[in-house]
Amino acid sequence: MLEKLKEQVLEANLLLPKHGLVSLTWGNASGIDRDRGLVVIKPSGLPYERMGPEDMAVTDLEGKLVEGPWKPSSDLPTHIELYRAFPDIGGVVHTHSRWATVFAQTGLGIKAMGSTHGDYFYGEIPCTRPMKDSEIEADYERETGRVIVETFRDLDPQRVPAALVYRHGAFTWGESPYEALCHSLVLEEVAFTCYHCLSLCPGLEAMEQSLLDRHYFRKHGPKAYYGQNPPAG
Amino acid sequence: MLEKLKEQVLEANLLLPKHGLVSLTWGNASGIDRDRGLVVIKPSGLPYERMGPEDMAVTDLEGKLVEGPWKPSSDLPTHIELYRAFPDIGGVVHTHSRWATVFAQTGLGIKAMGSTHGDYFYGEIPCTRPMKDSEIEADYERETGRVIVETFRDLDPQRVPAALVYRHGAFTWGESPYEALCHSLVLEEVAFTCYHCLSLCPGLEAMEQSLLDRHYFRKHGPKAYYGQNPPAG
Amino acid sequence: MLEKLKEQVLEANLLLPKHGLVSLTWGNASGIDRDRGLVVIKPSGLPYERMGPEDMAVTDLEGKLVEGPWKPSSDLPTHIELYRAFPDIGGVVHTHSRWATVFAQTGLGIKAMGSTHGDYFYGEIPCTRPMKDSEIEADYERETGRVIVETFRDLDPQRVPAALVYRHGAFTWGESPYEALCHSLVLEEVAFTCYHCLSLCPGLEAMEQSLLDRHYFRKHGPKAYYGQNPPAG
Amino acid sequence: MLEKLKEQVLEANLLLPKHGLVSLTWGNASGIDRDRGLVVIKPSGLPYERMGPEDMAVTDLEGKLVEGPWKPSSDLPTHIELYRAFPDIGGVVHTHSRWATVFAQTGLGIKAMGSTHGDYFYGEIPCTRPMKDSEIEADYERETGRVIVETFRDLDPQRVPAALVYRHGAFTWGESPYEALCHSLVLEEVAFTCYHCLSLCPGLEAMEQSLLDRHYFRKHGPKAYYGQNPPAG
Repeated sequence: MLEKLKEQVLEANLLLPKHGLVSLTWGNASGIDRDRGLVVIKPSGLPYERMGPEDMAVTDLEGKLVEGPWKPSSDLPTHIELYRAFPDIGGVVHTHSRWATVFAQTGLGIKAMGSTHGDYFYGEIPCTRPMKDSEIEADYERETGRVIVETFRDLDPQRVPAALVYRHGAFTWGESPYEALCHSLVLEEVAFTCYHCLSLCPGLEAMEQSLLDRHYFRKHGPKAYYGQNPPAG
Repeated sequence: MLEKLKEQVLEANLLLPKHGLVSLTWGNASGIDRDRGLVVIKPSGLPYERMGPEDMAVTDLEGKLVEGPWKPSSDLPTHIELYRAFPDIGGVVHTHSRWATVFAQTGLGIKAMGSTHGDYFYGEIPCTRPMKDSEIEADYERETGRVIVETFRDLDPQRVPAALVYRHGAFTWGESPYEALCHSLVLEEVAFTCYHCLSLCPGLEAMEQSLLDRHYFRKHGPKAYYGQNPPAG
Repeated sequence: MLEKLKEQVLEANLLLPKHGLVSLTWGNASGIDRDRGLVVIKPSGLPYERMGPEDMAVTDLEGKLVEGPWKPSSDLPTHIELYRAFPDIGGVVHTHSRWATVFAQTGLGIKAMGSTHGDYFYGEIPCTRPMKDSEIEADYERETGRVIVETFRDLDPQRVPAALVYRHGAFTWGESPYEALCHSLVLEEVAFTCYHCLSLCPGLEAMEQSLLDRHYFRKHGPKAYYGQNPPAG
Repeated sequence: MLEKLKEQVLEANLLLPKHGLVSLTWGNASGIDRDRGLVVIKPSGLPYERMGPEDMAVTDLEGKLVEGPWKPSSDLPTHIELYRAFPDIGGVVHTHSRWATVFAQTGLGIKAMGSTHGDYFYGEIPCTRPMKDSEIEADYERETGRVIVETFRDLDPQRVPAALVYRHGAFTWGESPYEALCHSLVLEEVAFTCYHCLSLCPGLEAMEQSLLDRHYFRKHGPKAYYGQNPPAG
């Protein structure tokens, strides 16, 4: 079942080490079939180099394994919270990529310092609040998802498709597993440049709103004019 | 038409990801046939790994597509402004390379800190002024080119073949698309070393003028003695 | 003799340059056969690209060569001290990996700044005290092991399987040579992020204890639920 | 003539880009045949990927081309000054490697911060004084060599086989072109760690003398015990 989605989820998982976003078995990508209400996700702790599409775990939106030979990623409950709260997303990626993690570990959001940021994220990428001991000690991975959703109470998850989790790492999402993966890649890039801008110019503020608008909306929404339409081959 | 120039433009575009200067589809290289007044440029939003010479877009100096199956890069109007204002250049490259972007996002130029800089750039690589809202909201990409040209009102674009665009990224140029690409590579290198010099020695000034003269003119102008003459096969 | 262990030790040694943890001939990995009391270790100063399993040196726990065509690594006495003092470990790795070495050279431990750290190390990775001249001038490599063991007088070496050696580099250990190698890889990652967290937020404290507990114990001990059980294929 | 030396010089030159020590055509390696008083060096401005042993330039110690199809590297006079002043060296390498260049551009030497440094360099790697305009404007490359030699008036070039040239880059040397290349590699490594140690702990002093002695003399001189004796295969 869900053969095409399994291929897409596998591809996004394999691109994680290829782009230097994860070491060992640390990251994971998932996708959702909205019609059936089924999630496809990387198995827990399996080395990337040995995974095939048939190793992907299929679960329902309660986290129950429906198909697959392995236990799903232990981060599955976080992914599920995001799929439940953000109905328009089709893929989720979790990494501990280096520069994003530096911001997550210090509890700072990543301000929109320039056009690379504005091309993908409409404003600051927020960091979640510290979790309470009761949240950490109970259903931790599910609570991780809930604290991300709480952070987006007044934010549009489609316009800012990424969150830093305090003292932990990053989650990104998108229309597909591949788009979620691309957002992880861009997140790492803007984390790198934001860090060094702050180091070169302490206290540097975000870019001008008009420039952010221009860059974001030339790629998104009805007035977009970047890329091919329809997209190239 | 312009088969050789298409090959050269394609090569420069493919060297961008190879040298780590771009991720995803972010950069672009172009070349110009001065006799015919035609520009060859990368198509918009196309992945580098799938491009062939026949995918290159050919336009006139008004930006009108003359040949090619795809929309040209959305940065085309910036390239055209540079070709119009700097009559001796044959290629232009645009990147968001990491270290150059750090300077662009903070609005700082890159001072000539040492001989690597002086071998290619005769003095500070400037950063453009912030663009006005009216410029951003109107013909943005063309205005980006104009603000670069404005920055070079009192500078020789052949002696300083690069500009940082405020809150955005870098443009470099040269006699050919390949030379423009080389200047992007050197720009990234000098951005890296300038950043760390400033971090190690805050307030460090540029190198001595006599040393800058020596390095620049041993590679450029009538007294150049670096390399083979004629250039090596 | 010990053919399988030689293969494991060779593999761990070859993964060192592959993961960018060592240059030239700087690092070394070893393993122990506890039943026979024999240690297998990389030969001294041999290039990684030319080593086969038959080049591995086999020694007893006095450091006497039992088998092999080459002198064992000059760091062997340090490895032996660790095997003697930490009876549950099966492999040791020594590197001068870049970010870990920065901490070692400044004499600072690496605090648990986030979940990547907590997934592998239960608390701060300590740095040894400066060695006395008498220790340096006598049996230096053995004393290096002793000062590591001294540092762990009140620490559990299984819960913190790594030490920084003041002004020198890092030693890590684990159940097997491969696990010790993985700990070197994670050490380098957490050294990187800790350094940059401290740079972005001087004085930043370690993560909350409850979060450290959660991450460490979801991977270790009787309540672990990360990965496959039994481990995947 | 000098076929073996040409192979060695070529190999050292090719290892420069392989180890990320140079970009484009920026670095060069040479070797000397002391009996014949002939130097073999990379040709000027030739791309690394196209060089064969027959492209190497052979010159005498006046810098006159004796054999080879190309002009020798424009840095030849610096190499020659080093060969003349340091009679025991057999190879010289020049790079603008990133971290060494950061120190050169700020005019700071690289202190011996830890054992990686002490294994190869017996103390601080010095930076030359700024050159006078008269030196820059006259026989610049020869004067570059002279200012290095001047810096070593009270230093032993065999114990500290590297120099930073103010606002320029690095020169290293050794018994052979390959050893000079290794010293460039180690120089870059110690420049990296020294930079970050100073950033983490401003004002950090060099390592203790006893530890420096131990590390340097376990690899050099009559009491050396690192590596194989004779060296491994």
